[in-house]
Amino acid sequence: MSTNQPAPFTADDYRARMARAADTAAAAGLAGVLVAPGPDMVYLTGYAPPADTERLTLLVLAADRDPVLVVPTLEAPDAEKAVGAPAMTLRDWTDGKDPYEVTAPLLDGRGRFGISDNAWAMHLLGLQQRLPDSSYASLTQALPMLRAVKDAHELERIAAAGAAADATYEEILKVRFAGRKETEVAADLARLLTEHGHSQVDFTVVGSGPNGANPHHEAGERTIEHGDMVVLDFGGLKHGYGSDTSRTVHVGEPTAEEQRVHDIVREAQQAGCAAVRPGVACQEIDRAARAVITEFGYGERFIHRTGHGIGVTTHEPPYMIEGEEQPLVPGMCFSVEPGIYLPGRFGVRIEDIVTVTEDGGRRLNATARELAIVE
Amino acid sequence: MSTNQPAPFTADDYRARMARAADTAAAAGLAGVLVAPGPDMVYLTGYAPPADTERLTLLVLAADRDPVLVVPTLEAPDAEKAVGAPAMTLRDWTDGKDPYEVTAPLLDGRGRFGISDNAWAMHLLGLQQRLPDSSYASLTQALPMLRAVKDAHELERIAAAGAAADATYEEILKVRFAGRKETEVAADLARLLTEHGHSQVDFTVVGSGPNGANPHHEAGERTIEHGDMVVLDFGGLKHGYGSDTSRTVHVGEPTAEEQRVHDIVREAQQAGCAAVRPGVACQEIDRAARAVITEFGYGERFIHRTGHGIGVTTHEPPYMIEGEEQPLVPGMCFSVEPGIYLPGRFGVRIEDIVTVTEDGGRRLNATARELAIVE
Repeated sequence: MSTNQPAPFTADDYRARMARAADTAAAAGLAGVLVAPGPDMVYLTGYAPPADTERLTLLVLAADRDPVLVVPTLEAPDAEKAVGAPAMTLRDWTDGKDPYEVTAPLLDGRGRFGISDNAWAMHLLGLQQRLPDSSYASLTQALPMLRAVKDAHELERIAAAGAAADATYEEILKVRFAGRKETEVAADLARLLTEHGHSQVDFTVVGSGPNGANPHHEAGERTIEHGDMVVLDFGGLKHGYGSDTSRTVHVGEPTAEEQRVHDIVREAQQAGCAAVRPGVACQEIDRAARAVITEFGYGERFIHRTGHGIGVTTHEPPYMIEGEEQPLVPGMCFSVEPGIYLPGRFGVRIEDIVTVTEDGGRRLNATARELAIVE
Repeated sequence: MSTNQPAPFTADDYRARMARAADTAAAAGLAGVLVAPGPDMVYLTGYAPPADTERLTLLVLAADRDPVLVVPTLEAPDAEKAVGAPAMTLRDWTDGKDPYEVTAPLLDGRGRFGISDNAWAMHLLGLQQRLPDSSYASLTQALPMLRAVKDAHELERIAAAGAAADATYEEILKVRFAGRKETEVAADLARLLTEHGHSQVDFTVVGSGPNGANPHHEAGERTIEHGDMVVLDFGGLKHGYGSDTSRTVHVGEPTAEEQRVHDIVREAQQAGCAAVRPGVACQEIDRAARAVITEFGYGERFIHRTGHGIGVTTHEPPYMIEGEEQPLVPGMCFSVEPGIYLPGRFGVRIEDIVTVTEDGGRRLNATARELAIVE
């Protein structure tokens, strides 16, 4: 369905990202950055190991040296094929050897390092043991902006993923809801996301009736009935970047209360989006959305944060949450997704991805936010 | 295809596992065990969070208290549904709060803890910061036997998964190889594993010709040709326990050299299996298999360890590798999978899962290990 393929990232793109990470780390007083398999490594090198196992794979970045990827010998042929491989030196280690022995000489033994949040504790302990005078901070804490600000090529991809999610929503409105199981509608969502170019589907929430009141419900065996509110929340990756959107629909005509709760969430979501502009703290987005819901007496029923970042994953920092004082910067992309959850009855959530521009927030989802009636 | 369903694990099974883990930890001088989402948590509680995110989920086990599961409020409804939930107390924390503040009072601030290998570094750093006098060791290092010895119910499952993998191999011998892509044969393997009761397929390696010489090659776009050696290595989970078997087949008649290399690997694999008995160190299994390959002059071409444990994952400790002095104990299950890899030409690997009995090793894969000819 998608005809415009974005230009692939090149080794130079990854070289630039790694250089920027090393420079940012140095500016923050760090001796370097230790990058584990996962989103940080995909972002910085384009490399995803065949499996995330106990065998150490670690990218070492420091301002005064070229990037080095420590990699198990068995996986070196895979690493050599990564797009970013020309921008780094591979240092392999063989089964039976101590991988920390290979890594330690690459590090300043008295330095402080940022390390990927999701690095294995086992590997952190291995480094701490070998370099007892070194210290570590989680990358999100040490360099919260490392992946948060997207460049034009990334924005193009996130917008394309959002458009594909929007097309999915438009089409799901036409399928039958009443009499089908949540899992069946969820399968429709997954199929549509794939048809619209997603290479990976991360979640397809279909929360009907009381299931909608559990914001972490995915999709279950419940048969959707006439009269149900249904929370839809779905997303995944297209061209390596994430989509994530939610709409709440109603099977048949809603009651006055259902319509009212939906109106409140819609107003809250609008308030959250309207608060977006450079320099505003993340927590202000949460406050803006929460204030509306609280004003209408449902504050206790909005039981999660207002949003999360999105990029090479569908769920990452920064978080739109009380206490997060990080100021917004043009190029950041995140969800704005307030909700109201009435236990045992129903839930409502409305979510768009928003990017920060010089002029304010720009939504990357454009489908109608009014309560849609489905059959 | 499978008719005999094993009896599901109960809350009492998980209670017993958690009690044993706490007792073992205390006997090893640890103040407790910190269990992250993943195989340790599945094994101990039956619980797998909806996603492994930055939100802390942590099971705290200590000999002098009941198990506590620290869980994000949003995911508490999921955790409450876990089979092991009645055997633990849930302690939830809400977005915006500090999860380490909830966890720290559960820990002895001067104690040493075993922590899951795959716990996020971010969480370990969070605990280290809050409890600067505590210390940590990776669970594999601290309690290597925690999941290694399988009871009768686990052995039943691993044997059933092995039988399903064997049935898959018997059927793959009948499909066409020549003229088809590796990925097509890999898809056949995945389909067959699923038909034979696997709920999850972890890997379907099809390494034809030169691709077989890279032991970590999965399956690619190469078209298999007449005259190719083809390494097949596949497995996944059935009833929550793993399968993993490899056979190397030949498209048409092999050359004398191909046959000879295959014979050597078969002899090495036999030697590895024959070395299995209680009390023998893991590294002896590696040595036994490696000695055969070295004797025939291919020692440099056997570039990985001989085996790995299997259980609720398809790949876990203990490892059959030089330097691993852990003695074998009845109930352990692991792979014996030597190989020879001739770069640019072909590879051979033969693998069975073996369990340790009082009398020696018992193979849980039973298909012929002779070089099979396919079309």
